Amino acid sequence: MQESNARVGAPDWLEEIRWNADGLVPAIAQDAVTGDILMMAWMNAESLRLTAEEGQAVYWSRSRGKLWRKGETSGHQQVISEIRLDCDEDVILLKVEQKGGIACHTGRRSCFYRRLEGGQWASVDPVLRNPEAIYGKKQGGSNHE
Amino acid sequence: MQESNARVGAPDWLEEIRWNADGLVPAIAQDAVTGDILMMAWMNAESLRLTAEEGQAVYWSRSRGKLWRKGETSGHQQVISEIRLDCDEDVILLKVEQKGGIACHTGRRSCFYRRLEGGQWASVDPVLRNPEAIYGKKQGGSNHE
Repeated sequence: MQESNARVGAPDWLEEIRWNADGLVPAIAQDAVTGDILMMAWMNAESLRLTAEEGQAVYWSRSRGKLWRKGETSGHQQVISEIRLDCDEDVILLKVEQKGGIACHTGRRSCFYRRLEGGQWASVDPVLRNPEAIYGKKQGGSNHE
Repeated sequence: MQESNARVGAPDWLEEIRWNADGLVPAIAQDAVTGDILMMAWMNAESLRLTAEEGQAVYWSRSRGKLWRKGETSGHQQVISEIRLDCDEDVILLKVEQKGGIACHTGRRSCFYRRLEGGQWASVDPVLRNPEAIYGKKQGGSNHE
């Protein structure tokens, strides 16, 4: 985390956010047109500032410990339509245009493709594109850790 | 937290969830009809089990350290339409019918009523009902901590 560095000269709107103990907040990505919830990932101050500046979603990868420009490998960028903040100032909502129509590393439109049905998590949304075709054969792990 | 107790005899679908170090996961509530994102709060295993059993959203209040049946004071319950899980098994999405049409403790439909505009968080959604009329004059603090 480079929390203190990221906040040097930080704009006021960034100072209003209540980061957690790790300097992060959850960020929900929603399709600006359809309203579909695409994914949830995490942001630190720097990633949110870059998201606003660049007009594309930039998250903080907790597993890799670095900035993660959504779509940097897949081409599935998220172009920002709106950035919203909740009443507690600790959750961000991004309204986005999802390039390629695929947000999930499994090749599905949304990461929320499993629904609780009869006491089981049933996969109810189709794979639109084979992940190997998106990321190559070596891709593993999660897209948004 | 009564994490271990809550998991005694827990159904398999609950065991598949990757709770954080505090035994919690974020839960996003979305209007099942309009697609509006209403709020994000936190759940432990017991609250999610109760949500599924009772068909109404039950969260875990981090500030109060106890279960929080959404709408217990306001009457603004969230009736469950679907429970979804993301690809990392660490975020829950609830599709709900929002009773009273108000999810936020500020009296607005959604907690995400502020939009980043010109370097400021602008309140862009109307207050539908005075919070004092919902909670009484003593109400203070956040609705979903």
